[in-house]
Parts: sequence; C-alpha cells; structure tokens
Amino acid sequence: MIRHFEIDLQGIKALVLAMGGTVEKALAEVCQALFTRDPHRLAEVHLQEQKVNDLQIQVDNLCVQLIAKQAPVAKDLRLVIAAIKINTDLERMGDQVVNIAHCAADLFLQGQAIKMLPDLLKISERVRSMVRDSLDAFVRRDVSLSQEILKRDDEVDQLKDKIIQEMVSSMRLNTEEIEPSLGMITIARNFERLADHATNIAEEVIFLATGDDVRHAKND
Amino acid sequence: MIRHFEIDLQGIKALVLAMGGTVEKALAEVCQALFTRDPHRLAEVHLQEQKVNDLQIQVDNLCVQLIAKQAPVAKDLRLVIAAIKINTDLERMGDQVVNIAHCAADLFLQGQAIKMLPDLLKISERVRSMVRDSLDAFVRRDVSLSQEILKRDDEVDQLKDKIIQEMVSSMRLNTEEIEPSLGMITIARNFERLADHATNIAEEVIFLATGDDVRHAKND
Repeated sequence: MIRHFEIDLQGIKALVLAMGGTVEKALAEVCQALFTRDPHRLAEVHLQEQKVNDLQIQVDNLCVQLIAKQAPVAKDLRLVIAAIKINTDLERMGDQVVNIAHCAADLFLQGQAIKMLPDLLKISERVRSMVRDSLDAFVRRDVSLSQEILKRDDEVDQLKDKIIQEMVSSMRLNTEEIEPSLGMITIARNFERLADHATNIAEEVIFLATGDDVRHAKND
Repeated sequence: MIRHFEIDLQGIKALVLAMGGTVEKALAEVCQALFTRDPHRLAEVHLQEQKVNDLQIQVDNLCVQLIAKQAPVAKDLRLVIAAIKINTDLERMGDQVVNIAHCAADLFLQGQAIKMLPDLLKISERVRSMVRDSLDAFVRRDVSLSQEILKRDDEVDQLKDKIIQEMVSSMRLNTEEIEPSLGMITIARNFERLADHATNIAEEVIFLATGDDVRHAKND
C-alpha cells in the first residue's frame, strides 16, 4: 500500500514538473518573440499552453484518484493538496504567457517597434528565474529558496512600477506612443502576475515543509 | 460516520458562503467609494479583505481535516476539492477588490475627479451579479446558471475593451488625462479579473454537477 502511494505520488510530482517545464518553455518562447521581434515564435506559445491545459486536467484527476484510493493523511495529504493548488497556479501562468503573446501580436500587427526597455528585459529575466526556482523549491521542499522567492517578488513589483512610470513619460511626450506604451504596460503587468503565481508556489512549499502559513503574513 | 461527514461538509459550505458574502461586501464598498467619490469607505474594504484571508485559512484547514478524518470518495471528495479551489478564487477576488481600492485611493489623492464612465458602472454591476450568481450556483449546484455566467464573462471582456478604448481617446485629447485614465484602465482590468474568478467558480460547479470539464472548452 505504501509503495503504491509513493509510486502514485512520484507520478503526480513528475506531471507537475512536466507542466512547470512547459510553462517555462512557453515563457522562454514569448520572451524570445518579444526581444528578437519575431512574431513566428508566438504560435509555439499557444501550442505549449494547450499542453499545460491538458496536463492540468490529468494532474487534477490523478490527485483526486490518489486521495480516493489511498486515503493519505497528514503530510502526504498536504502534499497532494499542494499539488492541486500548484496545478491551478501553473495553469493560470499559462494564461498570463498567452496574454503576453496577444499583446506582442497586437504590437507586431500595428507595425509598432517594440521598445527594448532594459527594465522589461530585466523583469522578464527575474520572473523566469522565479518560476524556475519555485519549481525547484517544490521538488526539493526547499524553504530557504522559497523565502528568497518571496523577497524577489517585491523587486518585480518595483520594476513593474518603474516600467509604468517610463511608459507614462513616453505617452506624455508623444500621443502616438499611447497605444504601444499601454501594450508594454500590459506586458509588464502580466510578468508581475507570473511572479505572483511563482510566489504562491513558494508559499505552498513553505507550508508543506514547515506547517507555517505565510500566505497573508506579507500583505496585511 | 455519514452524519458526521454531512455536518462537516455543511460547515465547509457555510464558511465558503460566508467568505463569498465578505467578498461581495468588500466589492459593494469599493463600488460605493468609487461611484460616490467617498474615500472614507475604502478602509472598510481592507477590513473585509482581512476577514477573507482569515476565512481562507479556516476553510483550507477544515477541508484537509475532513479528507483526513472521513476519507470521502467520488462526488463527496469532488465537492471538498471544489471547496478548496473556490476558496483560492475567493481569496484572489479579495486581492482584486483591494487593487481597485488602491487605484481609487490614488485617484482621490491626486485630486483627480473620477470620471463617472457609464461603462465602468455597467462593468461593476455585471461583475457584482456574476459574483453573487456564482455563489448561488455553488450552493444549488445549478448548471444552467453556471453556463449563463460563462456567457456573461464574454460581455465583461467586451466592456473592458470598450473602457480601454474610451480611455485611450481621452489620453489622446489631453495628456493631463494620461495618469487618471491609466487608473481607470487598471480598475476595469481588476473588474474583469473578478469576473474571471466568478467564471472559475461556475466551471467548478458544472464539473461538480455533471463531471464535464469545461475549463478549456472556450479558450483554446
């Protein structure tokens, strides 16, 4: 019975990681599209997101089956519940990446030169490392890495605010810049939301490993 | 055993509904603050969100305890998992309402007259009814109401796009309007995200009642 449980649990973990890897790949593609101004890469983003959606349903089903068949308790049950929640976060992250792809497509369509803001590149790199690290933290149940991710979320918020201010200045100087700048703001906001989801995953890991609920420690 | 389970389940349902009611109250307060230009009402929003956060932890704990103690299967297990997911949605909805409150506070601080866009009032009303109906649909496991909510989400998206276009026109006419218009766009986007969460709840209800996974039927 215990061995069955361990095998099923490893299966769920493997699927969650495959899903995380797919989100990372979609994110890498959309960044590549943005920063090399290559609209052809956007199709790949949608294919990856489709995979994320399919994996979400699989993970959900496996988790429910595992609970029903094996009736896990205590830490094991917490791990399965964490997988269900992380699953939801990863699926939403797929949506954010697709939102970025839509914004990029609009900018390409309008024939707008996508401004290569250094801060946009910076926020994309920060977010990508947060996503990668949140998945590593989940695999290793790494509390200190998770706590570091919570701190990095604040930096991403600051970067987003800085990008908004830059875009407001650009709009003030030239009204032709209003629509492309709004697109850039939407892209920055979606990166920030991706960071929020990575933070949710990190909080789940801390709770799993320590039993400390840090979800509302920061915001209140 | 069965009676215990039913009592615990009713307890969870009651807490989820209390949480939903608190989100609705916070949403009503922030709308009142916005549309009567009354910054004093914003403090109440933060108090309500604090309650939502506390309830989230309670609901999560009760759900995990119920699974561990009673080992529900099939539909009963699905209901508890749905409660865990709806719990997450409601907590995020609290965050969106607080985001709207922050935007409103910024607009008040800047001494900006908040434009009484008819479409902003409309989107707020649509979203409030979607939130209310998604909770009713959960209580009654009402599939047709849930399906109606999915359709109303498209209308909210269209309203949000319309507001963005109106704001872009206003920014083009007067650069002084750039920052307040951006605030209005952020408010509209947060209303739209509230509608997305109500839609998630409706999708959970459909899955609970019919076993049909409609989560990715629309977007792909």
